[in-house]
Amino acid sequence: MTQAHQQTCPIAGSLNQLGDMWTLLIVREAMAGATRFKDFRDGTGIAKNLLSSRLKQMVEHGILEKFDAGEHGVRNEYRLTAKGWALAPIMIAVSQWGNQWVYGEGKEPVLLFDRKTGKPVAPLKPENSEGEEMNWLAVGMKAGPGADETMRRRLAPNRDPKSRSKSPTKKQE
Amino acid sequence: MTQAHQQTCPIAGSLNQLGDMWTLLIVREAMAGATRFKDFRDGTGIAKNLLSSRLKQMVEHGILEKFDAGEHGVRNEYRLTAKGWALAPIMIAVSQWGNQWVYGEGKEPVLLFDRKTGKPVAPLKPENSEGEEMNWLAVGMKAGPGADETMRRRLAPNRDPKSRSKSPTKKQE
Repeated sequence: MTQAHQQTCPIAGSLNQLGDMWTLLIVREAMAGATRFKDFRDGTGIAKNLLSSRLKQMVEHGILEKFDAGEHGVRNEYRLTAKGWALAPIMIAVSQWGNQWVYGEGKEPVLLFDRKTGKPVAPLKPENSEGEEMNWLAVGMKAGPGADETMRRRLAPNRDPKSRSKSPTKKQE
Repeated sequence: MTQAHQQTCPIAGSLNQLGDMWTLLIVREAMAGATRFKDFRDGTGIAKNLLSSRLKQMVEHGILEKFDAGEHGVRNEYRLTAKGWALAPIMIAVSQWGNQWVYGEGKEPVLLFDRKTGKPVAPLKPENSEGEEMNWLAVGMKAGPGADETMRRRLAPNRDPKSRSKSPTKKQE
């Protein structure tokens, strides 16, 4: 794996744990029910040595946990932790983007649907804490309690007001 | 960059364009207003040669576009295309996951808020096409019009019903 990002940032911090081409495909397989080394290998096409190292890292990061599925002796398998299942919003957001922007309308390889009702899943959209609908480009970022000095300076409200107005309003959804 | 994923899958297809540790940090900078090579370098800490190659790939993938910002002669800068701005849901999903699972409550480096109202952004949640709230784990996948034979077989409804019941209902949100 490349050297880890040093910035105190929820995107950089997440990419240190997810930023490998293979990690989210392993998560995809786990969400679809894969638990055995062979399942992950067959499902993704990843090389054995890479899969070993990724599974190990994902266990270290608490995304997967090992469990013993052996009836006659130990047999390690892998399942998602709560932290791993919490990747669902990222997986759905990535799927929707891929369908729309990598493949395009009418060429979607995979359609998302609501298992309860059978209806399609709508494109994700953000809401504020009062349940009011928002536009994606209205999402602002400010320093949180865990921000270091660098991040606090970056996110200072009056740092670069000019750049804020660059959001292309006509591209909003 | 590692060899591209060959699977016809919106996650694999997206990771071929996003699956580098740096790409989403470059998007983060562009969303915050960066346009110049130096802005991206200073904002991310990426090495010059890597940044050059990533910017080139992102232009090839249609995530960024070059424009001439020179008043006296050509000066190339970069801005997000509609496809690039459409990464906002992924960025927000990654930020929320990082805040909660990499840093944890009370240690969030960055808080998301609604610029219009100042209120916090709520955790993303999915809805079906009728606007009915869904649970993340109720999101199912089925073959779409662009699925190849392999993906069609993988997603056949009766392929592995056992695995479907493995979703840990108590971990649902």
